[in-house]
Amino acid sequence: MVEAIRSLRVRGAPAIGVAAAFQLAHVARGFKPGTDRRTIERTWSRAVRDLNASRPTAVNLFAATARMDRVFQEHRAQPFTGLVHRLEREARKFFEEDLEMSRRIGRAGAGLIRNGSVWLTHCNAGGLATAGLGTALAVFYEAKRRGRTFSVFADETRPLLQGARLTAWELSASGIPVTVICDNMAGFAMARKRVAGVITGADRIAMNGDAANKIGTFGLAILAKHHGIPFYIAAPATTFDPELADGRGIPIEERGTAELRSFNGRRTVPEKAGTWNPAFDVTPAGLITGFITDRGLIRPPFGRTLKRALFPDN
Amino acid sequence: MVEAIRSLRVRGAPAIGVAAAFQLAHVARGFKPGTDRRTIERTWSRAVRDLNASRPTAVNLFAATARMDRVFQEHRAQPFTGLVHRLEREARKFFEEDLEMSRRIGRAGAGLIRNGSVWLTHCNAGGLATAGLGTALAVFYEAKRRGRTFSVFADETRPLLQGARLTAWELSASGIPVTVICDNMAGFAMARKRVAGVITGADRIAMNGDAANKIGTFGLAILAKHHGIPFYIAAPATTFDPELADGRGIPIEERGTAELRSFNGRRTVPEKAGTWNPAFDVTPAGLITGFITDRGLIRPPFGRTLKRALFPDN
Repeated sequence: MVEAIRSLRVRGAPAIGVAAAFQLAHVARGFKPGTDRRTIERTWSRAVRDLNASRPTAVNLFAATARMDRVFQEHRAQPFTGLVHRLEREARKFFEEDLEMSRRIGRAGAGLIRNGSVWLTHCNAGGLATAGLGTALAVFYEAKRRGRTFSVFADETRPLLQGARLTAWELSASGIPVTVICDNMAGFAMARKRVAGVITGADRIAMNGDAANKIGTFGLAILAKHHGIPFYIAAPATTFDPELADGRGIPIEERGTAELRSFNGRRTVPEKAGTWNPAFDVTPAGLITGFITDRGLIRPPFGRTLKRALFPDN
Repeated sequence: MVEAIRSLRVRGAPAIGVAAAFQLAHVARGFKPGTDRRTIERTWSRAVRDLNASRPTAVNLFAATARMDRVFQEHRAQPFTGLVHRLEREARKFFEEDLEMSRRIGRAGAGLIRNGSVWLTHCNAGGLATAGLGTALAVFYEAKRRGRTFSVFADETRPLLQGARLTAWELSASGIPVTVICDNMAGFAMARKRVAGVITGADRIAMNGDAANKIGTFGLAILAKHHGIPFYIAAPATTFDPELADGRGIPIEERGTAELRSFNGRRTVPEKAGTWNPAFDVTPAGLITGFITDRGLIRPPFGRTLKRALFPDN
């Protein structure tokens, strides 16, 4: 599992968290009734440590292992089968919460999808990034479940092609017509193909509504504004950072040059040329029509509205 | 040569025209002084026909073969060496005209490039698309010749990566610092890297200023407007179509699905998903700051200004 997370075979922050929780329950199931306590505790701690080290920045991963570890520490003195049972229940609960989060997002956004409409999405904010239904794609799945007929343009999403590889696979497997385009075709698709609106996911959202997401999201929001069509971000409350006032505080990961320089072993950029490879960008709140969240659809002005909807106890 | 044009090893409308002219001169040089007239004429006609069939839509190709054929027909009765000499001279003249066109475009635009500025370009409008210096890139070459220091972001330009492969090679070989980005990073580059402006080429320009160019150009023009930076198109007078009132009359070539579905033999889009692959888009005149042409820099309002600058005799 550590290898699978490290090599991105399991990707998407919620999916990583759920996978880590189940992996820890699996580790506990491996203990034999006769195993002595010290061996059990050593094995458990090593599993937690190894998982935490697999992706250094995935917040959901740390949340998942911390939750499982809390259950382990609370029940370590219990009879063996009781401990395993508790851990399995916690992992399942974590999984169910993620599924329920997706379902709520789907219900909050499905009403936006009219019959015959054409939507556009970027990267993969689908079931392959969460436990089941995703965020942006959860909206499409719920609209489909309600019998809506519509279709989706999926940006291929360079450099790693999550849109072409993952979103196109998910949507077509679910019977939703999907058309893959290169990222640079999105503007022309809006102009010529009557795109009704854009829905993407997000990686981190500030309390004024500025949102970090896969590189290219910012450009899409500008194109949507130019064409007078809505631009929505679908994300659970856990993606909003109550400590973050605005997007200036979001650090942007710049990844290595290899993702741009070659593809499938074939060099595409000459050696003397430089590359720039920001993995994310920040879309200012002013370009965002609304947030589709597990606490409902939130429209501007964001600021206080966001806080009230997402963190009512603060 | 026919094979080279067909397989896009020679690409870019002006470059195709020049290559065809030289190829016909080369065919004539191959005639032996003793060859009978009928064989010569048959060989010549076949060469013209084969070249014309290599790329069905390249206007410069037909212009080049027609010009060479006119010289052949006028001088076919002359002594053999005279005919060959005339054809070689015509091809060289065609080549020189193309070079001079690029030089004039470079001079018209070089003043825009300030020291320390950062520019952005799309696809390849460089020497690899013409006889020597290109259109958009001719501006950078002339600025460099004048001692300006500046750098250029090159969109990789999916699906065929002309920016990553060709523009990055040309600029870095000329000592101009170039940074390749994915197409979806252009907006973020404008926001974070202080891009001074955008210069692209064009494939066909209507008399109101609407311009067809490589897919993605339209989106770049919108992004430039959003950031308040200028968006220029560099093109010779021959790219403007005096018969075309506006961009609605420009047919958009939609290419096959293979360019998107796989890369270097590796499938990137699942079979059940569709693709859309327009090769060009149309940028409305209202988004264009100016045209950098071999007749000077032309600013809005276009309409009558364009006609007067480009077709003064009409």
